[in-house]
Amino acid sequence: MQFHSLKEEVCEEIKGALAKVEEKDVYSLIDAILSVEKVFVTGTGRVMFMMQAFAKRIKHLGIDAHVAGETVEPPIGKKDLLLVGSASGETKITLAIAQMGRKRGAKIGLITASPQSRLKRLVDVCVRIPCPTKLALPEEPKSRQPMGNLFEQSLLIFGDCLAILLQERLGVTEAEMWKAHANLE
Amino acid sequence: MQFHSLKEEVCEEIKGALAKVEEKDVYSLIDAILSVEKVFVTGTGRVMFMMQAFAKRIKHLGIDAHVAGETVEPPIGKKDLLLVGSASGETKITLAIAQMGRKRGAKIGLITASPQSRLKRLVDVCVRIPCPTKLALPEEPKSRQPMGNLFEQSLLIFGDCLAILLQERLGVTEAEMWKAHANLE
Amino acid sequence: MQFHSLKEEVCEEIKGALAKVEEKDVYSLIDAILSVEKVFVTGTGRVMFMMQAFAKRIKHLGIDAHVAGETVEPPIGKKDLLLVGSASGETKITLAIAQMGRKRGAKIGLITASPQSRLKRLVDVCVRIPCPTKLALPEEPKSRQPMGNLFEQSLLIFGDCLAILLQERLGVTEAEMWKAHANLE
Amino acid sequence: MQFHSLKEEVCEEIKGALAKVEEKDVYSLIDAILSVEKVFVTGTGRVMFMMQAFAKRIKHLGIDAHVAGETVEPPIGKKDLLLVGSASGETKITLAIAQMGRKRGAKIGLITASPQSRLKRLVDVCVRIPCPTKLALPEEPKSRQPMGNLFEQSLLIFGDCLAILLQERLGVTEAEMWKAHANLE
Repeated sequence: MQFHSLKEEVCEEIKGALAKVEEKDVYSLIDAILSVEKVFVTGTGRVMFMMQAFAKRIKHLGIDAHVAGETVEPPIGKKDLLLVGSASGETKITLAIAQMGRKRGAKIGLITASPQSRLKRLVDVCVRIPCPTKLALPEEPKSRQPMGNLFEQSLLIFGDCLAILLQERLGVTEAEMWKAHANLE
Repeated sequence: MQFHSLKEEVCEEIKGALAKVEEKDVYSLIDAILSVEKVFVTGTGRVMFMMQAFAKRIKHLGIDAHVAGETVEPPIGKKDLLLVGSASGETKITLAIAQMGRKRGAKIGLITASPQSRLKRLVDVCVRIPCPTKLALPEEPKSRQPMGNLFEQSLLIFGDCLAILLQERLGVTEAEMWKAHANLE
Repeated sequence: MQFHSLKEEVCEEIKGALAKVEEKDVYSLIDAILSVEKVFVTGTGRVMFMMQAFAKRIKHLGIDAHVAGETVEPPIGKKDLLLVGSASGETKITLAIAQMGRKRGAKIGLITASPQSRLKRLVDVCVRIPCPTKLALPEEPKSRQPMGNLFEQSLLIFGDCLAILLQERLGVTEAEMWKAHANLE
Repeated sequence: MQFHSLKEEVCEEIKGALAKVEEKDVYSLIDAILSVEKVFVTGTGRVMFMMQAFAKRIKHLGIDAHVAGETVEPPIGKKDLLLVGSASGETKITLAIAQMGRKRGAKIGLITASPQSRLKRLVDVCVRIPCPTKLALPEEPKSRQPMGNLFEQSLLIFGDCLAILLQERLGVTEAEMWKAHANLE
């Protein structure tokens, strides 16, 4: 296999997965993010890394973003959003965190690959990026990549597009974003 | 702006950036990874998340991967590789870690956006993905995205392609990869 | 209040809490640790930091230690121990992780402040350090310190004593421990 | 060796180390913390865990605390304090971060075991807890414990005493602290 033909296939897969995202769901999620005081993100494994990348970028936009489990995480409440990433929508720890967020009165948002799941049943707003999951259900799209790759890649690019749409809505310049960037690195 | 036109642009940008990667550099990096005992990754911010995603995936292939700074990190030595992600190649902490790796006798690999940098001068193997950096040099390619987005996205997809090429070389099945997956989540 | 009188009170509290630990439970936990292949630690918040400190130290002894949720965490299995820290024994995420560990066939160990809890009912080996918990039950000992301080302090010192007893059992020198220390910092 | 005699020795060592802390340095550090807008903490390894424990506790007091390197870390500036933990005062990464903090105009505080070090020379306020360090200098006090144990234990208890003194100064109740506690766990 050659790197260059492989990267073409992978990029086409991502484009294909993101093409199936419902435009109106994107706007519902943007509205949810802009209507709350704090945005918390969660997930597990590589999905969590992509959610952290999203939290970091929207923090640069002046959004009060937090990562569940990090040291100085504040409490979540009724005026906040918990944004969950889970390909299958069945990850146990993620589900437990979402249930606690619900109990605290927070809005719950989900970015997922599955049309149905326990997580999906308890959320207020959901964006589906159709991709293979660890459940390997018959209705799932195919990918030439192993494991959760396609969902994780699509999640990163989805989050980055979302942040650009949020940047436009909020009228934040790139110079302002750089000013909000960590400077101890 | 519409999500769907934006995601097309972003995917085309990534494809364009990855198209400029030298195929031979990819194979040099694969050879470096397969010739060592342990692979350590480092970086800062969103770049670190992408390096962690790579470490996690190659660990599924049976490669003894570690993340600099995590709790149970072993010492690095002459038979190991430190793989560094840095768009500019000038990130202070990353540079300090690479210098320590060098001092311990480890091989150093770099994935970067810059043609020249202090990091580049001390590495054994380097893959360049030409992208805009925080240095905003005149010779850098353009992107319609803010900050390090294009490099970080390209880095994730590059790492995932690399892992697929490593999977092929090592003859590991996806079932074997799932068996190596964390199961407390 | 003066720092010096306060630190005396705090040290006396810790000594008092640790004095109530059953010596035989300490040896059961040591035996459990020495009878398995891998030791995983978990917990939340400040308790997790103390469990991470323990994992780091026993890794220096050559014990194959891991932190649940870190990037390169391997799967847990029948030959492994999941060591859980929880003052109340009722922390939701920790309980969910312990249940998964149980399901994978791992031995479960607990370091806790509570005499009874849902976590306690599912573990194989338990060390109790009697301290106040967030449940504020009437039978709990008193402390002049806020929140979980006394448990967290006692947990760190308990873990460090445990590591010294393990060091003695394993016959590892301090020089060997330094050789196992991370060297990219 | 017996657990109970060992824990007595360890508690006495901690008491002895903390007894050598200068009361006036404690108040200088309290004043520094109360005079800034944000407090950032840093360190490496087990020292970092203790600094994170401190950041978490003072966040409960309403202090705007942050951990260098965590996802949503804001930029540091002239009105902020970077509080550094380092036994030897010579840890490379920690030194690099402190130098960056200095360059950004932040105040720098240090909790250390060494009387002299490169870190010490660049800080505004310093608390010394005399303990053995990895430098093993002849003037260092002795400990029956391996590696950095005594400093790390003393650092946790020092930070917790500091937080209690801050709580008194700020007039925050324990009930208010619990309200500021993370609630997704």
